Amino acid sequence: MNYKMIRQTLGWILIFEAVFFCIPLITAIVYKESAVWSFLICIAICLVLGRLLTFKKPKDTTLYSREGFVIVALSWIVMSIFGCLPFLMSGVTTSFIDALFETVSGFTTTGASIFPAVEDLPYSINMWRCFTHWIGGMGVLVFLMVFLPLSGGQNMHLMKAESPGPSVSKLVPRVRTTALILYAIYFALTVTELVVLLILKMPLYDAICASFGTAGTGGFGVKNDSMASYSPAIQIAVTVFMLLFSINFTSYFLILSLKIKDAFNCEVRTFLFIVFASVGLITLNVYSSFDSLGEALRHAAFSLASIISTTGYATVDFDLWPSLAKGILVLSMFIGACAGSTGGGVKVSRVVILIKGVINELRTFIHPRQVKKVSMDSRSVEDATVRAVMVYIACFVVIFIGSVLLISWEGHSLTTNFTAVAATLNNIGPGLEAVGPTQNFAFWSIPSKLVLIFDMLAGRLELFPMLVLFYVRTWKK
Amino acid sequence: MNYKMIRQTLGWILIFEAVFFCIPLITAIVYKESAVWSFLICIAICLVLGRLLTFKKPKDTTLYSREGFVIVALSWIVMSIFGCLPFLMSGVTTSFIDALFETVSGFTTTGASIFPAVEDLPYSINMWRCFTHWIGGMGVLVFLMVFLPLSGGQNMHLMKAESPGPSVSKLVPRVRTTALILYAIYFALTVTELVVLLILKMPLYDAICASFGTAGTGGFGVKNDSMASYSPAIQIAVTVFMLLFSINFTSYFLILSLKIKDAFNCEVRTFLFIVFASVGLITLNVYSSFDSLGEALRHAAFSLASIISTTGYATVDFDLWPSLAKGILVLSMFIGACAGSTGGGVKVSRVVILIKGVINELRTFIHPRQVKKVSMDSRSVEDATVRAVMVYIACFVVIFIGSVLLISWEGHSLTTNFTAVAATLNNIGPGLEAVGPTQNFAFWSIPSKLVLIFDMLAGRLELFPMLVLFYVRTWKK
Repeated sequence: MNYKMIRQTLGWILIFEAVFFCIPLITAIVYKESAVWSFLICIAICLVLGRLLTFKKPKDTTLYSREGFVIVALSWIVMSIFGCLPFLMSGVTTSFIDALFETVSGFTTTGASIFPAVEDLPYSINMWRCFTHWIGGMGVLVFLMVFLPLSGGQNMHLMKAESPGPSVSKLVPRVRTTALILYAIYFALTVTELVVLLILKMPLYDAICASFGTAGTGGFGVKNDSMASYSPAIQIAVTVFMLLFSINFTSYFLILSLKIKDAFNCEVRTFLFIVFASVGLITLNVYSSFDSLGEALRHAAFSLASIISTTGYATVDFDLWPSLAKGILVLSMFIGACAGSTGGGVKVSRVVILIKGVINELRTFIHPRQVKKVSMDSRSVEDATVRAVMVYIACFVVIFIGSVLLISWEGHSLTTNFTAVAATLNNIGPGLEAVGPTQNFAFWSIPSKLVLIFDMLAGRLELFPMLVLFYVRTWKK
Repeated sequence: MNYKMIRQTLGWILIFEAVFFCIPLITAIVYKESAVWSFLICIAICLVLGRLLTFKKPKDTTLYSREGFVIVALSWIVMSIFGCLPFLMSGVTTSFIDALFETVSGFTTTGASIFPAVEDLPYSINMWRCFTHWIGGMGVLVFLMVFLPLSGGQNMHLMKAESPGPSVSKLVPRVRTTALILYAIYFALTVTELVVLLILKMPLYDAICASFGTAGTGGFGVKNDSMASYSPAIQIAVTVFMLLFSINFTSYFLILSLKIKDAFNCEVRTFLFIVFASVGLITLNVYSSFDSLGEALRHAAFSLASIISTTGYATVDFDLWPSLAKGILVLSMFIGACAGSTGGGVKVSRVVILIKGVINELRTFIHPRQVKKVSMDSRSVEDATVRAVMVYIACFVVIFIGSVLLISWEGHSLTTNFTAVAATLNNIGPGLEAVGPTQNFAFWSIPSKLVLIFDMLAGRLELFPMLVLFYVRTWKK
């Protein structure tokens, strides 16, 4: 284990975090809030610690797969621990676990909050909450790669460990340029949303926060009722952007490269099919409880887009919907967005590979001598990838069940426990019943909050980095 | 596809079913019930049809894997359709779907009933309900093999398709002798239970029905309150036998061959560990609602054994227990019994292979160059088996989710829908809430009942035979 490289990277993470704190600092200055001092102190702490850790450069910069996982997992934990300081210093909460829960929920783009009324929070704190979504959405290590002079082949391990999806493809031969292109698309799309929201007359502050929240598919809002009080036009715009941020960013690169046909690959087509089919079914199911078909369609589309993109905004309390609609929403929680987007969940490509793998296996039952490979976009999928997908889903199920059992101690209903884990492990935010869209996560006990914090990190980092961290042999020579 | 062999086997199934009808027929004669005529007519129909189908012997007796699956799936469907005739003819129900549901529930050893009060049913009908469990427990095709002169290698495909577990091992070189040994152990254990129950002063009729129900890990009872009104001694005896019938029958063969150490293999040890740990946790969790620790332990052990063995008897309404206890019970629903027992669920060996496979995959993340195989009982598990287990679980999840969504149309609670599918797909019987241990399945609409019938068959036959049946390419040349 190359401990020196781990130390060095963690140092850089802290320095970058100091830079990130500047956004809420500016907000605090603009709104003349006392939180200015909290952010200044946090910046100072991060800079000093970061400088100390990065002072001595490691001679050996070799990183193996193992170090990649460990660095990513530790970076996210360190980033969250220091990211929660403003909540404690500004006095909006006195509980370290609550502050940590909120920060992890932010960085992992979950959006599950422990605050019952976000409108009472200072502007700067809300800005920080929403900005953590934006940082976490594309990944802080991918961000690091754009600016840090890491050697070529090494940082692929970091990118693999942090980026979502069964396989990571480089857009261009150089990893650093790939990271740069991804962030450029991310930035451009975020700015586009901001402009659209401003045109639709959303206040500037709200629009910035909403853009950060949508871009990272996070879900923290600045209103107590999430998105319910905004105009239908704004709700529709947010629906569209939630879906846009759920699509593989590679597709946007391909569209820019004028390879339109390649952009609409199997995963994107499947994703769009699932979205349209689900919205149709939900609209039919909830139609009777709205004044018009248009209104039913708008709320159905918003809720589905919010859940499947794993954002977690709400315009209505879908916990009150009939059980088919709720069933489809719960299922979408698990499917999630496309790989290589900012969304969470199991990812559409994994679901596609899973189903194709199962059909393939059925075929070998019938024709045992015909061995065929699973293919996607007319290319055959590596056996190792298929196996990794199966293992991923198996791991997911194990963590899921373990978490539900652990938080069952508290005695809440099965649906509450089930959807609380589903909403955190898939980085969505709201679940059903006691963790429904009009509720919050403050009532959980500290051990349960720790389980859910683990689930949020495991979900965002796609399980393995967190598992590797707790696997004894990782730390052996 | 060898259609002639399929016809021939289905004919034999009907002839055997006529023989099976003799048990309830005798009961009807003893209790002087009018159902005598129903059973006589059913026997006549099965014999005539069976004789017609088996009249012309096929020249080509070759069976491939594909035919194996199709024969098993069709046999179970045909057996269920004719097995439901006594319910209709005796007039205890007028709905074909209800009668079919009850019969499939019986043969698949599920034990989910559509009758609100079983004490109102004729003795002979209750005997038939419980006897279907006994037939379905070990499998009717395994039974067929004992008596039918099928050629050697061919019937292995049938055995593989009907027997539960990731891999089927022959006890002795000849498949027919293996089937005979399995049935001999099954018969001996059933008789032992009957004797024990009689010694504990259970009435003869009740004891026969309870023995059939326990042996097949079914769960149909002859009392409205299942097992609640019997003495604690009887409840403890049934607990022990439910667990005994959940253990791989190969283990009993090994014990009889004095290979005690081999008998307690990894799966059996894991199963026993899960049972003891779960009973301990549940007892702690429900302790306060009982008069004494002994009583809490007895009900906890009974409920856990009933669920994990996928039997489905009840001594208490565990739907009223706190959510940790319910969570453990729901989890046990999915784990299920050992492979090669009469119990259902995913099977302990699959869970073990799954977890070992996941740990193995984690290891390759850390040491990419060290390729190690999954091993169990100090033998390495074939890669194909590991993959098949993963595919099995993936298939299971897909069928599970699809079924929950399909029955969600009716608008019952998520827990009801979720546990209704869990209880049928794992062949248990009772779930929670509207399908809890004090409820029944009569309220579901016909489409939902068809979904649950499919789930029961898919669960008992371990998914693939039913999937192969609905897979278009099966029927192509």
